[in-house]
Amino acid sequence: MEQAKTKKRSSKGGAAEHDVIILGAGIAGSMLGAILARHGAKTLLIDAGAHPKFAVGESMVPYTLLTLRSVSRRYDVPEIATLSSFDDCMKNINSSFGWKKNFGFIRHEEGQEPNWWEATQFNTPGVFNKTGHLYRQDTDAHLFNVAVKYGAEPLLGYLVSEVDIDDDRVAVRGSDGSEHTARYLVDASGFRSPVAEKFGLREQPSRLRHHSRSIFSHMIGVKPSDDVFWHSDAQRPPVRWHDGTMHHLFDRGWFWVIPFNNNPHSSNPLCSVGVTMDERVYPKPDDMTAEEEFWSWVDKFPAVRRQFAEARSVREWVSTGRLQYSATSSVGPRWCLMSHAAGFIDPLFSRGISNTAEVINALSWRLLAALRDDEFTRERFEYVERLEQGLLDFNDALVRAAFISFDHYELWSAVFRIWAYGSVVGANRVQQAMTAAHRTRSDEPFLALEDPPHVGLWWPDHDEYRRVFDLMVQQTDAVDAGTVSPDQAAETLFAELKAADWMPPFMFPDVEHRFLRPTSKTLARMFSWAAFQAPAQVRGLFLGQAQEVGRSLAVGRKPF
Amino acid sequence: MEQAKTKKRSSKGGAAEHDVIILGAGIAGSMLGAILARHGAKTLLIDAGAHPKFAVGESMVPYTLLTLRSVSRRYDVPEIATLSSFDDCMKNINSSFGWKKNFGFIRHEEGQEPNWWEATQFNTPGVFNKTGHLYRQDTDAHLFNVAVKYGAEPLLGYLVSEVDIDDDRVAVRGSDGSEHTARYLVDASGFRSPVAEKFGLREQPSRLRHHSRSIFSHMIGVKPSDDVFWHSDAQRPPVRWHDGTMHHLFDRGWFWVIPFNNNPHSSNPLCSVGVTMDERVYPKPDDMTAEEEFWSWVDKFPAVRRQFAEARSVREWVSTGRLQYSATSSVGPRWCLMSHAAGFIDPLFSRGISNTAEVINALSWRLLAALRDDEFTRERFEYVERLEQGLLDFNDALVRAAFISFDHYELWSAVFRIWAYGSVVGANRVQQAMTAAHRTRSDEPFLALEDPPHVGLWWPDHDEYRRVFDLMVQQTDAVDAGTVSPDQAAETLFAELKAADWMPPFMFPDVEHRFLRPTSKTLARMFSWAAFQAPAQVRGLFLGQAQEVGRSLAVGRKPF
Repeated sequence: MEQAKTKKRSSKGGAAEHDVIILGAGIAGSMLGAILARHGAKTLLIDAGAHPKFAVGESMVPYTLLTLRSVSRRYDVPEIATLSSFDDCMKNINSSFGWKKNFGFIRHEEGQEPNWWEATQFNTPGVFNKTGHLYRQDTDAHLFNVAVKYGAEPLLGYLVSEVDIDDDRVAVRGSDGSEHTARYLVDASGFRSPVAEKFGLREQPSRLRHHSRSIFSHMIGVKPSDDVFWHSDAQRPPVRWHDGTMHHLFDRGWFWVIPFNNNPHSSNPLCSVGVTMDERVYPKPDDMTAEEEFWSWVDKFPAVRRQFAEARSVREWVSTGRLQYSATSSVGPRWCLMSHAAGFIDPLFSRGISNTAEVINALSWRLLAALRDDEFTRERFEYVERLEQGLLDFNDALVRAAFISFDHYELWSAVFRIWAYGSVVGANRVQQAMTAAHRTRSDEPFLALEDPPHVGLWWPDHDEYRRVFDLMVQQTDAVDAGTVSPDQAAETLFAELKAADWMPPFMFPDVEHRFLRPTSKTLARMFSWAAFQAPAQVRGLFLGQAQEVGRSLAVGRKPF
Repeated sequence: MEQAKTKKRSSKGGAAEHDVIILGAGIAGSMLGAILARHGAKTLLIDAGAHPKFAVGESMVPYTLLTLRSVSRRYDVPEIATLSSFDDCMKNINSSFGWKKNFGFIRHEEGQEPNWWEATQFNTPGVFNKTGHLYRQDTDAHLFNVAVKYGAEPLLGYLVSEVDIDDDRVAVRGSDGSEHTARYLVDASGFRSPVAEKFGLREQPSRLRHHSRSIFSHMIGVKPSDDVFWHSDAQRPPVRWHDGTMHHLFDRGWFWVIPFNNNPHSSNPLCSVGVTMDERVYPKPDDMTAEEEFWSWVDKFPAVRRQFAEARSVREWVSTGRLQYSATSSVGPRWCLMSHAAGFIDPLFSRGISNTAEVINALSWRLLAALRDDEFTRERFEYVERLEQGLLDFNDALVRAAFISFDHYELWSAVFRIWAYGSVVGANRVQQAMTAAHRTRSDEPFLALEDPPHVGLWWPDHDEYRRVFDLMVQQTDAVDAGTVSPDQAAETLFAELKAADWMPPFMFPDVEHRFLRPTSKTLARMFSWAAFQAPAQVRGLFLGQAQEVGRSLAVGRKPF
């Protein structure tokens, strides 16, 4: 990257004190601030509070890791990649992290013990995925400190009262009457975004179709999930539930259980815990505190009750209203709404940090170029908006489909597979670009990832995958409307998966294969399928991964 | 300790839901909460906020270590002792800690480079003192989690609107209208203590004689102190300034520099930074922000300016008014004001955690006994009040003397030695009791430490030390009044130290011996002096330490 400094004091922008003002010094604002400052942009990072800050959103997926690593390499900020590795977090941040070897899901019914066969688990090879449960107060402070280290100027405890966006600069005024000006404004705050408010950008009502609310906290004394299920050894998954992110599913809702204390290296006794449910089906009660309502949910499910029998919260409980919000637009001349200022869906599928990193990836080079050219038109940033809206809409559709499916194991299993496979191949696609960028020492492979036909979908350039994704949405909608039975919908979707030439004919489309674990044998079979049977596009995506595994083995790292 | 539970549901206290309510879940409330819960007391731990919380007060002294270890062993809460050891903090909490191998002080004058000879440093043997700069947000959350783990019930985000103390119970009412009752109330909040407010306990005006205010934050990019002094190797202390807590002294004020990044194991890039000054001499300006005023102080001293040349704050700056406050009384029937709710002096000499632990030590067994007897008279807790008031008054006198001395190196050097020696011997006194308690498996040696003639002084049972302490106060008062010259006062005090039979005749009373470092040779000389020349009381205090050193060497630990 060229330094953005070169043209920064042009006649046009000369009046502004800063190149960029970022509102919000959380993980998004800090990550972007670090990148901009690293490339010489004079960046002011404003926050109403300061670190340490409590935050949830601790769970990572392989796609998140690769997005973080891409951003880190592309913009030469090694500290960002730290977040993608459990080992690096423990070494470079501190010993507060859980490790994550799986995504686990099990279905519950009120008053019932969960059936062992109504479970799914998704493991990924350790070489790509030795990832963690992020202790967000520490990762977020880490990135903030990195931003400051690279030269971003922090302005903390600062309450923004007004935002002005003129033709030639932006101005932020504080409740203390002071004013700060810049050439560009990024709003990385959240739901209460000053820019969204100024321009009336919050959709009312929101176009989003998914509905949920959440109650959450951090707890101590949470038992490992494995200890609370009455299943025999043969009925259990190959990797302990406790070694990953546990989801207890129920009709139109789910619990998350994200332990930080699930490995011998961690000194953190806490566990992130929350329950999320459709607020139309389960309206927020008037006569209970957040904590009382949480326990009333726990009491419904015997195994969950055992898991929390000795647990106590170490924070006040947060009970939200509907979580979903969106914006009609997320970029304009001299401004951008980033990530959670633009919209939010649901913590399911752990999209928070992944979306943030993806948006930062698309925004950063555009913004650095705009600073060099001193030109900040809406058009330059139009793709960022398309990306943000696409991420929001596809995630909305996926989470809605999942919620509808939760009460029927086979239907959930189909949704789970469509999600998991897209996530694997999407991650391979990013890995391929990263490898190519490294080999060619060029930014071209990253640029080539942009603007695919289905922007915002994990695997965004494959029409057949998109068609099956849409079929999943259509089928779950029909189940919701009562026009198709869940059995029928599940059958339809599994038939599609079995017939697909872009998915290996084993493991993924096999409803009996509940625990998706890429062992050496399965991986070898998958690579062989990719090499000799898969269509060209898919072949490339898998063989790139095969090369990476080979490379890791060559340097003595364990791939699993 | 017997379990407090035995009698807890007597007829008298039967109406109360809890045994003890603690207001404030900071380090003090959490430490006490852990102890009470550990011994079966039903404890409610109330806080208006939640962790993580920013806090300053990161510096430890040998006396603090021993007080923490005493409390930890006496009340069987091993997690408290973690705070006393750098290694244990890094292992059991996380890698955010600085280490501390010295207390360093150097005198500055406006616009001048500091003279190498106007420096003092105090190292203590590693075996007693491998201590850390506590990253308070993590130590405090650690202790809070421990309290919850042992069964203290947390009530967070709870705003107390009213406190009622009746004959047979206490009641705390929240802004939400709810009420919580207990048999005893501990107010471990701080300046804005609800109990102090209810009973009008804040002294107005305060009896305290010391005056100061402070400006502080956490910074990144602070240079090691050693890199900013233009001194030759021969002029430097034996231990790097950067390896400890640095004090830049100036006329009626001082900076603290407490790095968390001064060791190869720490992943924390921050440094705690503050400046404290007599607010009568330097009134708080109306026309500057806290940050502007901080930099105006930095600009006065060239070496300090170099140290902060590339430093930036990662928090909003806090600028306080006068720091000193006190209470007319700190215990009553069914209530106690603890530690910082009772009063505060100044961060100089790092008394915060030490006082807190000492008060908890005196309060805990009394409170557990009172719970068993179901009797909570003022008389039972009277010693806790005397201790708290004594700690406050002696610290007030010491800090005031130090501030007066800062502008005259020899006078400061005398005050420094009186403080340092008292602190060493006081720590030996606690160590001796701890060893005896361990050997006899009895609480008697801890009880025997209580109620000495000079309660609140570090070395509280030695009349001659007290006489010299008083002389130091009287002499510095006279310097302040202009009736004695600083030269004269320094001479008077050094003459006393040289003549004292309770202080070794080398190192401590020698003004040329600027860096107090107990090497093997010096320690051997000190133990020999203690064995053959010192009065009986002093002999015992040192020879107990000699045994400890011997024991450490025997198990292969390095004493230095």
